[in-house]
Amino acid sequence: MAVKQALPYVRLVGESWPLPLSRAHYEHTALSEQAKHTGRLTPEIYHYDDKLALIAMELLEPHIIMRHGMIAGIEYPRFAGDISTFMARTLFFTSDLALAADRKKAMIGAFSGNTALCKITEDLIFTDPYRIADLNRWTKPFLDAYAARWREDDDLKLAASRLKLKFMSSAEALLHGDLHTGSVMLTTQDTRVIDPEFAFMGPMGFDVGAMVANFLLNYFSQDGHEDQAGARNSYRAWILQTLVQIWNDFAEKFLALWRGHATGDAYPSSLFQGELGAIRLEAERRAYMSRLWTDTLGFAAAKMIRRILGLAHNIDLEKITNERVRATCEARALTLARDMMVNPGGYPDIAAVAAAARSMRAWTPEFS
Amino acid sequence: MAVKQALPYVRLVGESWPLPLSRAHYEHTALSEQAKHTGRLTPEIYHYDDKLALIAMELLEPHIIMRHGMIAGIEYPRFAGDISTFMARTLFFTSDLALAADRKKAMIGAFSGNTALCKITEDLIFTDPYRIADLNRWTKPFLDAYAARWREDDDLKLAASRLKLKFMSSAEALLHGDLHTGSVMLTTQDTRVIDPEFAFMGPMGFDVGAMVANFLLNYFSQDGHEDQAGARNSYRAWILQTLVQIWNDFAEKFLALWRGHATGDAYPSSLFQGELGAIRLEAERRAYMSRLWTDTLGFAAAKMIRRILGLAHNIDLEKITNERVRATCEARALTLARDMMVNPGGYPDIAAVAAAARSMRAWTPEFS
Repeated sequence: MAVKQALPYVRLVGESWPLPLSRAHYEHTALSEQAKHTGRLTPEIYHYDDKLALIAMELLEPHIIMRHGMIAGIEYPRFAGDISTFMARTLFFTSDLALAADRKKAMIGAFSGNTALCKITEDLIFTDPYRIADLNRWTKPFLDAYAARWREDDDLKLAASRLKLKFMSSAEALLHGDLHTGSVMLTTQDTRVIDPEFAFMGPMGFDVGAMVANFLLNYFSQDGHEDQAGARNSYRAWILQTLVQIWNDFAEKFLALWRGHATGDAYPSSLFQGELGAIRLEAERRAYMSRLWTDTLGFAAAKMIRRILGLAHNIDLEKITNERVRATCEARALTLARDMMVNPGGYPDIAAVAAAARSMRAWTPEFS
Repeated sequence: MAVKQALPYVRLVGESWPLPLSRAHYEHTALSEQAKHTGRLTPEIYHYDDKLALIAMELLEPHIIMRHGMIAGIEYPRFAGDISTFMARTLFFTSDLALAADRKKAMIGAFSGNTALCKITEDLIFTDPYRIADLNRWTKPFLDAYAARWREDDDLKLAASRLKLKFMSSAEALLHGDLHTGSVMLTTQDTRVIDPEFAFMGPMGFDVGAMVANFLLNYFSQDGHEDQAGARNSYRAWILQTLVQIWNDFAEKFLALWRGHATGDAYPSSLFQGELGAIRLEAERRAYMSRLWTDTLGFAAAKMIRRILGLAHNIDLEKITNERVRATCEARALTLARDMMVNPGGYPDIAAVAAAARSMRAWTPEFS
C-alpha cells in the first residue's frame, strides 16, 4: 500500500510557500472520477482521510516514474494506447458531449475551489517565464540571451496570455491538470496515471498538450543522455513515433466515443437525424478536433517553455551535467516551442510537429 | 416597495413545469453583484428572505417595462448610454480581466447551482426551435414552411449547437442571463435592469446578443403597430440608431475599463510594459472585441429565432392581431437571423446588421 499525505506547503520551494491541504480532497475526487472511466489506468484507492489529507492507495510495483524510464531509454510499447485511452475517456466523459448540463455544472462547482493549485499553473506556466521573476531560472550563461528575448517577445506573450485566459475561462472537461511523464508510473506491461491534485474543469488541450510537451522535451534531452553520438537514434525514433501515435489514437478514440456515447446536452442527436445530418455532424466533430489540436499545440508549447525558463524544470534536461550540452538541447526545445505558439498554422497535425522536432535537432545554437 | 416571490413552477406554463425556488437566491446574489458595479441601474434591494424565496426591493415608478414602451413607439434617449454602461461594467468587472483568479473561480462556484434556469435556456433557445417539440408554436399557417425549413437546416442547427456548447462551457463573466427589453424598467430619464434570475457565469455575447435580438425583433414588429404605412418611420430610425449605439458604446466602455482597470489575472500588465507592448496589447483588446462581436451576433440570432418558432414569444410580435401581417414581420426577422447565424462574416459590425435589417424590411415573403 502507498500512502500519500499533502503537506501544507510546496515541496519544491519549502515552507515559505504555503499550499492548502484541500488539494488532497481534489486529488481524491479526481482519482475517483478517472477510475470510473478508465478502470485500471489509475491506482486503486483503499482509503481517504479528509482530516489528515491522506490517500491510501495501491502500491505500484515494479512500476517506475515514466520520466526516469525515458531518460534511461526504455521503450513502452503499451503507453501510447493506454494514455490515449486515459485522455479520451476522462476528457470525453466529463464534457458536455457526455454529461447532462446539470451534472456538468455540478462538476464545475465541485472543482471551483481548487484555486491555489490552479493559481500555480496560471502564474508559473503562463506568466512568470515571460517576465523577470525571482523564482525563474535557466542554464546560464548560455540561455541568458534566450530568456531576455523570450521576455521581450510580444507575439509570444500575447499568445501565452490568450492561452491563460482559455485556461481560466473554458470549463470543457475535468482535467488531470498536471499530465506529464512524472505523473505516470508504468512498466512495459502496465500504465497508471497518478497525482491529479491540479484537477479542475478546464480546456481539454491543456492535458493533451502536457503529454506532447513532455515527449518533445525528452526527445531533445536525449543528446545529453547518449554514451556516444547516435547511440539513442532508435530511441529517438520511438519517442517521435509514440508522440504521433498518442495524438492520433487520442483523436480517434475521442471521436469514437462521441459517435457512440453522445449522451450529453451538447450537439443533441435529435437535431441530426437522417443521413445528411449524420454526415454534417461528423464533419463538425472533425472541426472540433481541429480546434482541440490547435489548443493542444499552444498548451504544449507553453509547457515546454516554462520547464526551461521558469521555476519548475524537469530532470530529463536537469540531469544533463554538461551545461553547454544541456543548453543546446534546451535552445532547440525553446525555439520549436516559440514557433508552435506563434505560428500554429505551420503545424497542421502531430506529424508536422514530429518532423519539425527532427529538423530542429539538426540546428546548432550559436553558443554550442 | 415591490415584493417578488419565486413560484415553484414556470409561470408561462403552469404547475406542470416545476422550477426550484433557489432561483430567488441567484437573482438576489446577481442583483447585489450588479449593484456594486452599476449603482442606480438596478433596483435597490431592501430585504431578502431565502426561506420565502422573496426579494423586497424599490418600487420603480413611473417606470414601465421597456417592451411596452417600444411597442407604443416611445423614444428613450438615455437608454443606449445606460444599457451599454450596465453591460460593460457587469461583464468586465466579473471577468478574468478584472478579477483575481481565485475570486473568479469562487463566482463560478457560487452560480454553478443555477442549473434549472440554465437548462431552460439550453433547451428553449438552442435546441427546441430546431426540432419538433410539443411546446413550440408559430404563426400558422403562414410560417409552417419556415418552421419546417428551419428544422431541416443543418447549417443552422450546427451553428446553434456550437453556440449552445459555448453557453455551457465558456465561463467568461457573470451574465444577467435574460437581458431582453422585458427585463428593463424605465422612463425617459431613468433606466433599471431587473429580473436576473437566469444569472450564471457564461459567455459575454449572450447578454449583449439578447439586447441586440430584442431591438431587431421590435424593429420588425413596428409594421404591425403603425396606424398607417410609414407612421413609425422615424421611430424605426430611432430603433436602429439606438441599436448601433448600444453595441458601439458598449465596446468603447468595455475597452476603456480594460485599459484603466485591468486588475485581473488575464493579460497581466507586467508582461506588456513599454510603448510597443502597450500598442500590441491594445491591438489584442480590439481582437478580443471582434471575437465578442461574433459571439454577440450568433447569440442574437438564436434569440430571435426562438421567439418566433419556440415556446416563449414576445408581445412585440404577439400583439399584432392580423396574423398575416405578424407572420410577415416574423418571416423577415427569421430570415435575417438565419443569415446572421450561418454567415457571420457578412456582418462585420453593428452598422451592417442595422443596414441588413433595413433591407430585409423591404422584402415581401411569398404568403404576404
